[in-house]
Amino acid sequence: MTREILISEVGPRDGLQSIKTIMPTPAKKAWITALAASGLREIEVGSFVPPHLLPQLADTAEIVAHALTIPHLTVAVLVPNRHGAEAAIKAGAHKLTIPFSASETHSLKNVRRTHAQMLDEVRSIVALLRALPANRRPKFEGGMSTAFGCTYEGDVPADKVVRLAQELREAGCDEVGLSDSVGYANPAQIRDLVVRVRDVVGRDAFAGLHLHNTRGLGLANVVAGLEVGVEIFDSSMAGIGGCPFAPGATGNIVTEDLVFMLESMGLHTGVDLTKLFEARKILAAAVPTEELYGYVPAAGLPLGYRASAAGAR
Amino acid sequence: MTREILISEVGPRDGLQSIKTIMPTPAKKAWITALAASGLREIEVGSFVPPHLLPQLADTAEIVAHALTIPHLTVAVLVPNRHGAEAAIKAGAHKLTIPFSASETHSLKNVRRTHAQMLDEVRSIVALLRALPANRRPKFEGGMSTAFGCTYEGDVPADKVVRLAQELREAGCDEVGLSDSVGYANPAQIRDLVVRVRDVVGRDAFAGLHLHNTRGLGLANVVAGLEVGVEIFDSSMAGIGGCPFAPGATGNIVTEDLVFMLESMGLHTGVDLTKLFEARKILAAAVPTEELYGYVPAAGLPLGYRASAAGAR
Repeated sequence: MTREILISEVGPRDGLQSIKTIMPTPAKKAWITALAASGLREIEVGSFVPPHLLPQLADTAEIVAHALTIPHLTVAVLVPNRHGAEAAIKAGAHKLTIPFSASETHSLKNVRRTHAQMLDEVRSIVALLRALPANRRPKFEGGMSTAFGCTYEGDVPADKVVRLAQELREAGCDEVGLSDSVGYANPAQIRDLVVRVRDVVGRDAFAGLHLHNTRGLGLANVVAGLEVGVEIFDSSMAGIGGCPFAPGATGNIVTEDLVFMLESMGLHTGVDLTKLFEARKILAAAVPTEELYGYVPAAGLPLGYRASAAGAR
Repeated sequence: MTREILISEVGPRDGLQSIKTIMPTPAKKAWITALAASGLREIEVGSFVPPHLLPQLADTAEIVAHALTIPHLTVAVLVPNRHGAEAAIKAGAHKLTIPFSASETHSLKNVRRTHAQMLDEVRSIVALLRALPANRRPKFEGGMSTAFGCTYEGDVPADKVVRLAQELREAGCDEVGLSDSVGYANPAQIRDLVVRVRDVVGRDAFAGLHLHNTRGLGLANVVAGLEVGVEIFDSSMAGIGGCPFAPGATGNIVTEDLVFMLESMGLHTGVDLTKLFEARKILAAAVPTEELYGYVPAAGLPLGYRASAAGAR
């Protein structure tokens, strides 16, 4: 089992996009600073979508500019299309992720594009990126949403996900990740699909798992991912977030609980839980009417808890 | 990985003992009937403790008598001491579990006995059981609580748990189970301790895992248990319960979510989720002021969900 795990914090994007409250820009900046100060090395700080669609993320360019001032932080953003990618490149983001729904029904509802149209969009962004000097070229991930099932289509066959992952790589994505956008995944499915997708995209090009806790299996699915060597997990502080286009989907897995679990297992996340709880206070103060989740923040740390040291006691 | 999993429902004991409401006896009977009708093959229906300590379970003898009328159901009860064991034998329970705290501090607070005193109690109960005709002799489990940590002592060393498990077997327990009474366990620890304890007590004498979800790791710990071949898990409908003597401990893992996860993975529990939700309605009606937990009851089943068939799609 791998010992170093990268947690990619998606709260400022996936979390904030799906709550009603619009977090003020200064609060976002303070929150992101606190998240990075806790030891999180990658944060998805926003999304370059039209402001009328997601007013919560209208300040993404300014947020990226702020995040870029934080040393050693990978600044990631979501881009739904070429237009968004242009804005992300202009802002200087280190990493761009384009959501690509394995379920074509979900793709049509989410971004109004078929798979073929989305692959064209991907190729167009890749052309844009390849025209940049190598040292200014952000990394480009295809984030395969509804990879484990879809609220419109139900089952999404693994064969289809594997084929689409290959097509995303062939279209020029540097990495492909798998998202359980609607909380349908189970641990057996995680193991199977991760192994198969990694086989076709290549081990170094697997961007990890983006899991939701809709049916309470989020951390169980992380354990299954760890079993097959996954080293990158997305999560959201306080589990805020979800997908406004996927009915029934609640929040991402909770960063605080994820860090606790991994560190308890003796895995290294680089994240200091005490500092993470400080960042949670900033979030709580900035969105006081929103529900915050998380078991460890509620129950507290076990007596005698030691980060990265407990493991198998 | 094993395909058949036994879920031991502990809601009528661990659940009801730690909520304020006293569930009326007829409601308990209807609930237990409905739990069994959903396919649950083992239910811990009560505890033979003095009624002034746990008035919620004062009707255990009557509940056992009712449960014994349900075909193919293993009727389990908790017994804190020889006196309780006598009552359990008189009532005709199929299985007796004595809680034995790996943490001596917890043992003293919970049952006011040292480890040595508890082992004497175990031996005394074993003598009682061995005096019975073999065909009327209930099975006797030592349920090792605080096996993964204690709110009073913090870490509980694995070596100590392994030694105590061996002592429980030598004292005559048919089986030894491991309980994370206070929600301290992590998946790495589960894997390690299960393997070590099973080595000393014998594979057939390992009574499985009793997990709490205090820090949200309940199902993640189940996945770790499955990895090392655990076939028996305790859980509580709606996650009600906990330990009144362990500050900070909330409920057991939720039966509904556990069944969903296992069946989604292609494992067989024999439990029908639709019927389980019917049993939950009976519980909800009988304890209307108590908080019920569970993600799957809230989010609903995935579109196209098939029990024991989804697995790795």
